[in-house]
Amino acid sequence: MKQMFETHRATLERAWQACQERHFWSPFPEAADAYPDSANAQTAGRLAFERQLGQRFEIDQPGITAWIGEETSPYTRQQLGVSYPQSDLDSLFEAATGAMQAGWAQADPEQRIGVLLEVVQRQYQQLFELVYAVFHTTGQSFNMSYAGSGVNALDRGIEALAYAWSAMGAVPRHAQWQRQFGRTTIELEKTYRLVPRGVAVCFTCASFPTWNALPSMMASLATGNAVIVKAHPATVLPMAIVIRLFRTVLKEAGFDPNLVTLALDSREQPIGKQIVKHPQAAIVDFTGSVGFGAWIEQNAHPALVYTETAGCNTVVLHSCDDFEAMIRSLATTMCMYSAQMCTSPQNFYVPKNGIRAGLGESARQVPFDEVVQALVKAVDALAGSPQRAAMILAAIQSDDTLASIAAMRQQGAIARDSAAYVHPEFPKARTATPLIIVADPSQGELYRQERFGPISFVIAVADADDALAQACSDVAQHGGLTAFVYAQDEAFIARAEQAYAQAGAQLTINLTGPMPLNFAAAYSDYHVTGLNAAGNASLTDHSFVASRFRIVQSRRPKRQ
Amino acid sequence: MKQMFETHRATLERAWQACQERHFWSPFPEAADAYPDSANAQTAGRLAFERQLGQRFEIDQPGITAWIGEETSPYTRQQLGVSYPQSDLDSLFEAATGAMQAGWAQADPEQRIGVLLEVVQRQYQQLFELVYAVFHTTGQSFNMSYAGSGVNALDRGIEALAYAWSAMGAVPRHAQWQRQFGRTTIELEKTYRLVPRGVAVCFTCASFPTWNALPSMMASLATGNAVIVKAHPATVLPMAIVIRLFRTVLKEAGFDPNLVTLALDSREQPIGKQIVKHPQAAIVDFTGSVGFGAWIEQNAHPALVYTETAGCNTVVLHSCDDFEAMIRSLATTMCMYSAQMCTSPQNFYVPKNGIRAGLGESARQVPFDEVVQALVKAVDALAGSPQRAAMILAAIQSDDTLASIAAMRQQGAIARDSAAYVHPEFPKARTATPLIIVADPSQGELYRQERFGPISFVIAVADADDALAQACSDVAQHGGLTAFVYAQDEAFIARAEQAYAQAGAQLTINLTGPMPLNFAAAYSDYHVTGLNAAGNASLTDHSFVASRFRIVQSRRPKRQ
Repeated sequence: MKQMFETHRATLERAWQACQERHFWSPFPEAADAYPDSANAQTAGRLAFERQLGQRFEIDQPGITAWIGEETSPYTRQQLGVSYPQSDLDSLFEAATGAMQAGWAQADPEQRIGVLLEVVQRQYQQLFELVYAVFHTTGQSFNMSYAGSGVNALDRGIEALAYAWSAMGAVPRHAQWQRQFGRTTIELEKTYRLVPRGVAVCFTCASFPTWNALPSMMASLATGNAVIVKAHPATVLPMAIVIRLFRTVLKEAGFDPNLVTLALDSREQPIGKQIVKHPQAAIVDFTGSVGFGAWIEQNAHPALVYTETAGCNTVVLHSCDDFEAMIRSLATTMCMYSAQMCTSPQNFYVPKNGIRAGLGESARQVPFDEVVQALVKAVDALAGSPQRAAMILAAIQSDDTLASIAAMRQQGAIARDSAAYVHPEFPKARTATPLIIVADPSQGELYRQERFGPISFVIAVADADDALAQACSDVAQHGGLTAFVYAQDEAFIARAEQAYAQAGAQLTINLTGPMPLNFAAAYSDYHVTGLNAAGNASLTDHSFVASRFRIVQSRRPKRQ
Repeated sequence: MKQMFETHRATLERAWQACQERHFWSPFPEAADAYPDSANAQTAGRLAFERQLGQRFEIDQPGITAWIGEETSPYTRQQLGVSYPQSDLDSLFEAATGAMQAGWAQADPEQRIGVLLEVVQRQYQQLFELVYAVFHTTGQSFNMSYAGSGVNALDRGIEALAYAWSAMGAVPRHAQWQRQFGRTTIELEKTYRLVPRGVAVCFTCASFPTWNALPSMMASLATGNAVIVKAHPATVLPMAIVIRLFRTVLKEAGFDPNLVTLALDSREQPIGKQIVKHPQAAIVDFTGSVGFGAWIEQNAHPALVYTETAGCNTVVLHSCDDFEAMIRSLATTMCMYSAQMCTSPQNFYVPKNGIRAGLGESARQVPFDEVVQALVKAVDALAGSPQRAAMILAAIQSDDTLASIAAMRQQGAIARDSAAYVHPEFPKARTATPLIIVADPSQGELYRQERFGPISFVIAVADADDALAQACSDVAQHGGLTAFVYAQDEAFIARAEQAYAQAGAQLTINLTGPMPLNFAAAYSDYHVTGLNAAGNASLTDHSFVASRFRIVQSRRPKRQ
């Protein structure tokens, strides 16, 4: 049964090396075209996805009381018509507990990790069905569905397995201990068992389900727990595909497939609170709204909680060497998936007398209005071409986001208005180009929270130090995952690093070029700090895995 | 400033080796007599203690509003008359936050750990003042005050430092990362900063303050946090001595002494809830009652919580090779510090038709009543000699414990009654010999909770499997830290290991001889599993340290 582990050992060891050195590495090609036999694989994936439409998605889990589903493609605006099993929660928890006790909890950590790496490998081998499922539920572009939700998500899964492997490996399984008590020597044999916490619940979000779910699921499963996936009702299919594969591989490896099950609700009848307060819930992983995340953090006790919610991600402009390149990077990142990522920049703090741009003799002061107009123009360039818009803006996952844009349009000084663009392939796609609002610090109620989707604010502040102070204060108080600073002054950069370290946002400085500013690489970039309201956990550090199992010892006199 | 670390590096490395191999090791002699120049050191310590009586204990911390103290020696029954500064909480939190920001948070982890190892070394060098303070506040015997509350507590402190060192060492500080995006290579320099959570609050208990406080304080401080010690008002002096030393060494090393301060209340006006709910409280470590521990676990959010409370520690008797030796070990451990330890056995589950004792031809069935009588007799032997009683039972910390004994005497079938014994040196000492009650499972309300102090129950159950099932069910439901099984049947032992692993109690099997059954050795024994109501944290695993700091990164294009 250690066979699977040995098959994948080299991958795990390589992954752990990358985690320690934090250089770039991935076992997967980053672009869909580089996938082996890509065209055929894509066709097969698309056909598998299409065959599923209008059908029941069979998962033979216990306690099924209904088959429901309410997904609509943001591209076609048509219902997928897929129905999924809705099981009663007690049955799921019972089955999960039973499955743990039937061998998973007692299995050697490397045996479990071997099975889980096999899941990763298989998911990679049949990736495009998942890619199309992500595409037609989240509204991500095809490239993002492949990269962000496909291979990058698998990378974050491997990364979590590497950390779990390291954390469990740090506990010896046996020890010999001897000490004098008075004139007697006591010799003891000690055995240390790793015991899982219990049943983990993994909440997945509508816009980016797999990227957060895979590391959470892998972290819980590797350490011996079972996982019930509470999928967002708008985006079930990607998780159902993942769950089915986990179950298949677990079963093949001789374990109870009910280690991984689906908990389903509808927007009308949510079960989120019920599942968190279930007496058998031992771990809760949550990705989603700030409000429900905060409720979970406060109410999940005695379950452990790992959250990643949202906040206002900030941009501070001090000065730059290449103004056009900076604006292009900022605009592209703002537009990426219509800012439906927890890492998308939202609030741009710009000195009201502008910023210094360029180097040496060609340096000049760019006035505030020109910064705003440059951003608007750069966004226009992306949004104005339907081909580029489709690649970058993609589609809007939820009508709620359109409503939020409409509401914001009534509130602020619009520098760039939002409008639908016509997707070249899916003319009915739900789309919206970015809304850019110019604000000042008195309008904090507008921007001091996450405005999900393509809504951003350019905030006129006194100067660059004021920009930094306000940005970091907003992050500390209201949360924030990422931050972006442009400055040619090393002393200012040092102050920014210090200030954001205290506020708890992951900082990117002076980056230009084709890498999206908010790209977070597995094995290298820590995602979320846990220091502010945007989440309490980080992908991936030891803190993310070390408490998912506990250590129980037994000791007895040494046997001769 | 790394000088202190280099001075103590070998100790830390040796400690970490012990943690990984979990063999016996300590840099300190286990017995007071083996302490260097012991007699003089003891005298000096006693004199220092005596000089403090009736005096203010000077700690120059901010926000002092009063000088209070209400300690009484369990031995002399006289007030110590020591008064301590009571500071207003806002001032303490402000000062703690300021002290972190003034250099501690940014200091290199090894620099911090060097300072903290220096504290350990200095505390060892002036140990006996602390020993006498423990003796005259907790009522522990002199030997336990030296070992358990002295050197063993220092060992647990070093152990926590070793784990913090390991956890922080696992995070690289810098990385170079490069990847292709299209035809462009992006090269980034990444910097990873370790950022402390904030201000930690460490609650200490009346009966065993230092053993839990030192690892908690060390874990928080090593990872860059400040610590406010909320001492139990009945046992302030040991913590005040520790706090004073921390402050002295921190100051000598150039740090702000307000990294470690004292929060004080009285029994009449407790501040526990206030301090937990203080908006600047980022971490709470708690040792104490189940009730308040549970309140903290539920209400401390967003602070992290590490608890060690209590439960019903269980003994399961199946069979034994040496009946007398088993009974002697059980009786001694029951009597140790009058069972005022969270690890003391309380509930003895004994088959009603008795147990098999002895090996081979000399084996015989010992009836239930004989088991009870043997325990009673063994306890009588210890309690009947004032010299031995003073060594083992020591004194009762609180009048509440006497009240609890009195209440229990009204409830159950008394097999051995409790009474005061006359301490040979302190005739007025608050003492009580063990109360042993015979119960059956219908009387669960009596024994299915911690009855603090010398109160134990012998519970008549159907057979050994019933004993195991009931013991583990009680532990799972009501908490339990330690468990003790005697069995000559390997299959039964395997079942017991499995069952207690699931219930979450640290198990000792078939141990006899001079080692107290509940002795937990730093670097080898994990204390508390975190799997039941007796606490959520373990001394010491990576889970105890890994979340006390967070990782914040910054990244920027590689500089040429």
